Amino acid sequence: MTEIKIPLTVPLAKHREYLKNFNLATASSGSLFLFAGDQKVEHLNSDFVGSGISSEDASPEHLFQIASAAPVGVFATHLGLIAHYGADYPKVPYLVKLNGRTNLYEGTENLMSKAWLKVEDIVEFKKQNKLNILGVGYTVYLGGTNESKMLKSAAKIVREAHQNGLLAVIWMYPRGKNINEDDIHTIAGGAGVAAALGADFVKVKYPYNKKNKETAKDFQEVVKAAGRTKVICVGGGKQDAKEFITYTWQQKNIAGVNGLAAGRNLHQRALPDAIKLATALALIINHDASLEDALAVYLGKKKIERHKKSDFLGLF
Amino acid sequence: MTEIKIPLTVPLAKHREYLKNFNLATASSGSLFLFAGDQKVEHLNSDFVGSGISSEDASPEHLFQIASAAPVGVFATHLGLIAHYGADYPKVPYLVKLNGRTNLYEGTENLMSKAWLKVEDIVEFKKQNKLNILGVGYTVYLGGTNESKMLKSAAKIVREAHQNGLLAVIWMYPRGKNINEDDIHTIAGGAGVAAALGADFVKVKYPYNKKNKETAKDFQEVVKAAGRTKVICVGGGKQDAKEFITYTWQQKNIAGVNGLAAGRNLHQRALPDAIKLATALALIINHDASLEDALAVYLGKKKIERHKKSDFLGLF
Amino acid sequence: MTEIKIPLTVPLAKHREYLKNFNLATASSGSLFLFAGDQKVEHLNSDFVGSGISSEDASPEHLFQIASAAPVGVFATHLGLIAHYGADYPKVPYLVKLNGRTNLYEGTENLMSKAWLKVEDIVEFKKQNKLNILGVGYTVYLGGTNESKMLKSAAKIVREAHQNGLLAVIWMYPRGKNINEDDIHTIAGGAGVAAALGADFVKVKYPYNKKNKETAKDFQEVVKAAGRTKVICVGGGKQDAKEFITYTWQQKNIAGVNGLAAGRNLHQRALPDAIKLATALALIINHDASLEDALAVYLGKKKIERHKKSDFLGLF
Amino acid sequence: MTEIKIPLTVPLAKHREYLKNFNLATASSGSLFLFAGDQKVEHLNSDFVGSGISSEDASPEHLFQIASAAPVGVFATHLGLIAHYGADYPKVPYLVKLNGRTNLYEGTENLMSKAWLKVEDIVEFKKQNKLNILGVGYTVYLGGTNESKMLKSAAKIVREAHQNGLLAVIWMYPRGKNINEDDIHTIAGGAGVAAALGADFVKVKYPYNKKNKETAKDFQEVVKAAGRTKVICVGGGKQDAKEFITYTWQQKNIAGVNGLAAGRNLHQRALPDAIKLATALALIINHDASLEDALAVYLGKKKIERHKKSDFLGLF
Amino acid sequence: MTEIKIPLTVPLAKHREYLKNFNLATASSGSLFLFAGDQKVEHLNSDFVGSGISSEDASPEHLFQIASAAPVGVFATHLGLIAHYGADYPKVPYLVKLNGRTNLYEGTENLMSKAWLKVEDIVEFKKQNKLNILGVGYTVYLGGTNESKMLKSAAKIVREAHQNGLLAVIWMYPRGKNINEDDIHTIAGGAGVAAALGADFVKVKYPYNKKNKETAKDFQEVVKAAGRTKVICVGGGKQDAKEFITYTWQQKNIAGVNGLAAGRNLHQRALPDAIKLATALALIINHDASLEDALAVYLGKKKIERHKKSDFLGLF
Repeated sequence: MTEIKIPLTVPLAKHREYLKNFNLATASSGSLFLFAGDQKVEHLNSDFVGSGISSEDASPEHLFQIASAAPVGVFATHLGLIAHYGADYPKVPYLVKLNGRTNLYEGTENLMSKAWLKVEDIVEFKKQNKLNILGVGYTVYLGGTNESKMLKSAAKIVREAHQNGLLAVIWMYPRGKNINEDDIHTIAGGAGVAAALGADFVKVKYPYNKKNKETAKDFQEVVKAAGRTKVICVGGGKQDAKEFITYTWQQKNIAGVNGLAAGRNLHQRALPDAIKLATALALIINHDASLEDALAVYLGKKKIERHKKSDFLGLF
Repeated sequence: MTEIKIPLTVPLAKHREYLKNFNLATASSGSLFLFAGDQKVEHLNSDFVGSGISSEDASPEHLFQIASAAPVGVFATHLGLIAHYGADYPKVPYLVKLNGRTNLYEGTENLMSKAWLKVEDIVEFKKQNKLNILGVGYTVYLGGTNESKMLKSAAKIVREAHQNGLLAVIWMYPRGKNINEDDIHTIAGGAGVAAALGADFVKVKYPYNKKNKETAKDFQEVVKAAGRTKVICVGGGKQDAKEFITYTWQQKNIAGVNGLAAGRNLHQRALPDAIKLATALALIINHDASLEDALAVYLGKKKIERHKKSDFLGLF
Repeated sequence: MTEIKIPLTVPLAKHREYLKNFNLATASSGSLFLFAGDQKVEHLNSDFVGSGISSEDASPEHLFQIASAAPVGVFATHLGLIAHYGADYPKVPYLVKLNGRTNLYEGTENLMSKAWLKVEDIVEFKKQNKLNILGVGYTVYLGGTNESKMLKSAAKIVREAHQNGLLAVIWMYPRGKNINEDDIHTIAGGAGVAAALGADFVKVKYPYNKKNKETAKDFQEVVKAAGRTKVICVGGGKQDAKEFITYTWQQKNIAGVNGLAAGRNLHQRALPDAIKLATALALIINHDASLEDALAVYLGKKKIERHKKSDFLGLF
Repeated sequence: MTEIKIPLTVPLAKHREYLKNFNLATASSGSLFLFAGDQKVEHLNSDFVGSGISSEDASPEHLFQIASAAPVGVFATHLGLIAHYGADYPKVPYLVKLNGRTNLYEGTENLMSKAWLKVEDIVEFKKQNKLNILGVGYTVYLGGTNESKMLKSAAKIVREAHQNGLLAVIWMYPRGKNINEDDIHTIAGGAGVAAALGADFVKVKYPYNKKNKETAKDFQEVVKAAGRTKVICVGGGKQDAKEFITYTWQQKNIAGVNGLAAGRNLHQRALPDAIKLATALALIINHDASLEDALAVYLGKKKIERHKKSDFLGLF
Repeated sequence: MTEIKIPLTVPLAKHREYLKNFNLATASSGSLFLFAGDQKVEHLNSDFVGSGISSEDASPEHLFQIASAAPVGVFATHLGLIAHYGADYPKVPYLVKLNGRTNLYEGTENLMSKAWLKVEDIVEFKKQNKLNILGVGYTVYLGGTNESKMLKSAAKIVREAHQNGLLAVIWMYPRGKNINEDDIHTIAGGAGVAAALGADFVKVKYPYNKKNKETAKDFQEVVKAAGRTKVICVGGGKQDAKEFITYTWQQKNIAGVNGLAAGRNLHQRALPDAIKLATALALIINHDASLEDALAVYLGKKKIERHKKSDFLGLF
């Protein structure tokens, strides 16, 4: 178990709960495997139906089945889905995504995405249901006329999450006409803003189009800029499983990030394949697996040896 | 009586009330026959006076007469009308529509429709009057610059409705210059957003212009995307009664939706005709009637046999 | 005394106060003679100084003198004026106009007029001063980008007025580039919105430019659309007294409205003339006078016979 | 001591405090000599440094020195300055200007100036410091898209000031592309709005460019329109002292206004000159001095005879 | 120890705390050496990585190392960073910067920067952690359409800071198309606004491009305009150390300012160099050092003699 620095916005009386949430989310490794399930708002139904997408994905229950069976650290989704399915999937570690916007508004400028609910609503919900709600998530779009409102909301959410012993994860996206979303220096800037906000983890874009280890090395700038706020990379659109595993390994071991946010790469697969892939990813993220071992496990060429299944928080 | 999953946003102390409301609204069938009476705001007086519209419809009391005499699950209208007529129609199952906008603003972009009142106001009103207020309704327009505000309001309304044991119905309309409102994939996206909001029912458009069973089959995408949020189809403008009954049967039995929202198709008819039509629709929605039976009942060729009148919640 | 239906938004404990206010405002006739005195904001000083305007009208005290001496149901004006003159005119039945905008902003689009004060402020004021404050008024402009905010305010104001036993009067004006303010169908639409808001009375435009009884008959659409919300017609600019009396009679007896809102037609006249005209109008509105009687009384050819002066709430 | 009508928005329990504030501010004359010191925000440093401006004016302390030594009724300035200097100038009668905007935004349209603080903050401040805070001031710009917000704030401020026994002064400025700020009819309209807001005093523009008594006579329209809200004229830019005194006399004795707001005309002068000028003005405003006497006193040709120095609230 | 005037917005019960904070921040000299560390938001990662920037600066911890080792009066940064690092740097005197905006939005017009948190949140944080939080900071942009909102926030923040015994520092920047940010008269105007807000210190631009003592002399206008609000100059981009020391000396001793805000000039240097420079600056700001002495100390040619190390608040 890595030693962690509890942010001072977590009051003493909530240290135990924060630690419990942090260790559960990171399998006590300090790194977070976030299963992103907020695309029903962000991308409407396009991520769930179509060519190359498993037919199981048409129903939101598929998300819960994966979250329940695969060794993810948190399943990030909106409260409404948790309210409808949570009773049947009580052991999933949840992170409530507080905001969301659809892609019907075309363009990248002056985006706005308000928090749907207050942190106190989530705390009340957790109290009423005893679900494993480990934290909250909020997306910030930097660069538009609403930046100021979103930074204010984000700071408030981080503070209130911590006051209640919950983790705070910020999705940080610079967006706008003249903004290159794949520019590592810009991504690093966003990570620094998340640090100023006091987030525990910041979810940022990774330039997957640049396919070499040099990118992972350059990405160290992002990790440094974030300071004690830990960086997790967005998985993005569905990729070839082996490539995705490779990227994840490079991000963790070369760039030095502390986690991954995978959404489409998991739920667009049928349940067994999603579980296999998630297992390989978790080995890298939480258990320092070598790339070879992770790939071998995914391909079924190797059983999980070095890491006992019990490490996986009893999810197998 | 179908077994239902109570959303976790309904606290334990309100389970009994939520169940009572749900079963009353759905005639214990799990499907909702919503009589939509919010057009006095949405369409001003154009839905109530004109050629092909019964002269009875000129006064809002016509809505209450139908709601009182026909076997609808809920009558959705604004609080002001309920305040003025409710004492004379105390047995109607009401659903308070919280927002509304007129069609004087031409265009479909950047629409906004704020909730007129808070859920707590409705709860207070119910307490003061002992009316059968079963739930609340709220319209969301996706795709414009106000989307974010409306999603926030919707999430808050759903949560607060559930905290008080009330049903939450979301009218979900993607709107904008480049949005095809009849596109099933887009409608499915909207239904998924309602699921993320935690709505009990989502009221969506149905592409009535495409007149075949294939449409109903394609519409399954919407029902799947909504998950445990149940889909009800908008009735739209007044149609031929037999066609409307047929569509409703297809929606229920082919697409798999859980209800119908009929407004103009009922209130633009004289009271006896409206009751006949509503009876046929209720047979399909709440009592699994065959299309033939429903049509026969509407045409007066068949008495209600299979379903005892008493199933209709004593409304006859 | 007409039997009235108390809206359900008035709690039982406030029934007596609401009834008292309603009967005082309508002289127990169910119809409201509203003396509109909010033009100091709406039209700045143009309604009070100029050719054809009595020099007495230059000072706001003229309004109070008329309100005090003429048999009006309520005198609608802003709180500031009531605060400065109310102690000297304690018997006037007041209706506090909550919002107002100047005509300095040219154009009819995207109008906005916020409530200056909360209903609770008015309730507190009434408690502190024991004035006859019978209700509140609020103007809604339909059709612009601020419609949604104004509908929300209006619904809140109606509800809170009723919760405190006060009357709620809505000034309802569809406004915008493509909106014909004299179109009866559009006016009816606005009246229907006021019904959905739960107003007691809705003040609407009347197409005075169309000078025949046919207009009054067509205007029945408005009265029907409003349902149990009673319609009162705007008096508009100063007219010939006999014509104005004739219009009022037609509105009441042909269109079926329940009252009149007269402003400039009263205060632009010298006090004695204003009182004479108001008396004739009150005979029509509250006492079912014939047109001939009303005209004769205005012209001094007939004394008030059928109606005892004492009917006029002791205002003579 | 003139008899005054206490507005009904002042509760009985605050009558004594309101009267004390009113009499202190008006030297028991009913007319207000307001020393306007809010230009550090409104005009940045341009009113305080430059040709024709005393070098003393470079520091804000100059304002307090004048306010302390000259017989002004209130010194209107922002709370921050009072907080920094008030302890050294404890006898000054203060009026806290609640809002302010800079002139960096060029143009006159759609101006906005929010209240920086709430009336209750000022009440708390007064309680903490026992300073002579007699009232609050707020500027309203009529005619733009923010008019509605400012009218709402103004009404709230007037009401809350009165609830706490404080005076409420409204700076009322119609502004916009097609608005003639020097048009007396328009100024009168603004004064009428202030009356509708319930202000005690309204500060309006005076058309100084029209140099004859006719203007003062025409200005009676403004005074009449304001009713029981008393009118005070803006002093404007620095003028020749004798002309300024003459204007002030005409405003008081021909137009019938109840006071003056002088800012630059005082503070751009060296302290002794400012005191002399203020003394002459106070003689006109509060002590019915003749123009000749006032001019003679300013020029040092006459000692204060008719009015004992002790009338000046012990400020000499 | 200079005698200071405690603003009246600080209640008596908080005098001791305010004095403690003030003296700690100014080393009892009345002048403030502010180490500005809010650029992770303002300039993203561009101030922390690049040519001429020490590689240590890539991590936010570098800021804390400087703040901990160098004799700065306050380290101004966002709460999130303090929350993550404060436990390891408990002796740093902190000033919480409440707002921030990124430079992704190009242009200087209509800027907006909301306060992320309330003053009461900071007070609560201080209570929970016993850190040396001496005050709060807030940036105001004058001249745009959001000026009014920011002035309101600033006034509220200053008042609430003082109510809690904290210092209030305003970053005051006139910005817009036609605004010359280097114009001393305009800067003086901004300083006057800060005085009207009641700030303890105002951080303003200094025209470094004008390289002579005349500029420092002209800058006296700014200091005078600010009155009892003390002026501190922005350090701006990294400069040659000797030039920077010289400017600082001129600002202090010719212009008469009360402090300096240095950011990039410190953190873009390696720790030892940053400490040396900060020491020289502190000698000027807090200890009246001569320019020669300060330069000599920076160059290592002279040991600190006149001032005992213990003067530096035990930071060495």
